Amino acid sequence: MQRIAIDMDGVLADVYHQFFEMDEKDFGQRRPMEEVTGKPEREGFPNILQYVYRQGFFRTAPVMEDSRQIVEELNKKYDLYIVSAATEFPQSLPEKQAWLNEHFPFITWQQMVFCGSKQIIQANIMIDDHFRNLDHFKGETSLLYTQPHNVQTNEGRHKRVNNWKEIAGILL
Amino acid sequence: MQRIAIDMDGVLADVYHQFFEMDEKDFGQRRPMEEVTGKPEREGFPNILQYVYRQGFFRTAPVMEDSRQIVEELNKKYDLYIVSAATEFPQSLPEKQAWLNEHFPFITWQQMVFCGSKQIIQANIMIDDHFRNLDHFKGETSLLYTQPHNVQTNEGRHKRVNNWKEIAGILL
Repeated sequence: MQRIAIDMDGVLADVYHQFFEMDEKDFGQRRPMEEVTGKPEREGFPNILQYVYRQGFFRTAPVMEDSRQIVEELNKKYDLYIVSAATEFPQSLPEKQAWLNEHFPFITWQQMVFCGSKQIIQANIMIDDHFRNLDHFKGETSLLYTQPHNVQTNEGRHKRVNNWKEIAGILL
Repeated sequence: MQRIAIDMDGVLADVYHQFFEMDEKDFGQRRPMEEVTGKPEREGFPNILQYVYRQGFFRTAPVMEDSRQIVEELNKKYDLYIVSAATEFPQSLPEKQAWLNEHFPFITWQQMVFCGSKQIIQANIMIDDHFRNLDHFKGETSLLYTQPHNVQTNEGRHKRVNNWKEIAGILL
């Protein structure tokens, strides 16, 4: 059975929704998408490090459209793990696990990985929105999940996917 | 550079110390070592599931003798990760990270992995006290760290180490 490693932030959890909401509260108006597109997350939102440390930031993130049903299907066909680079923000760990338990209740604790570097992860398929994770991946298939920070040219290193329906089309 | 994955509980953190202390408080007398030796941890200590859920259980565990200095030396020679099966007890995650930050301050957040199953971990060397982790390990060297629950015959599947000085003798 092929093993698949699925990222959380920017793949299952819509963290940009959180960035925009908190940024609007801090600066009094909604930042236009064009202003953050093509920039690293930390450049697009000046106060981002405060946001990710706020209680509830991860716990209340919306679920990406269609991800729940498609991950449930993938979970029947693949040896599936949720792999989140989370140890940079220790307070996020219980929030992330509670979020997974609520929205993806079919994912067991055995299938969760909260790490820093993903270089230690062994899988056949990785879905992630960050080049820093995908570029070191040794497996056969790396899918780049489109997020505003990664819209720059992909140079063919990874297969780009724009939503969960496209992932289903490739993997199911 | 060879990658090494080091377990926490029963390898870096002396959880049996915690089991004996809490068990003595619950039952009024110190349980003799012979009574828990050769038994799974959950059989040796009837209330163990309560202990690991108690606040501070992981945070206050003593550090295994010599481990700090030897891990610091290993960290210079190997691509080193601390890999702890921790997601079974979500409240343990911040405690474990705080414990690592206190006792092993040279370990960065990038080097920490809190997971469930360790089958997804790719490394050359694994040090662990549980057969369930070592038996699935695909790397070249698996070291079984002696703990009361694993003293039964090893059948040569893994190299047994009884303390951190023995690990240093093999890996440094």
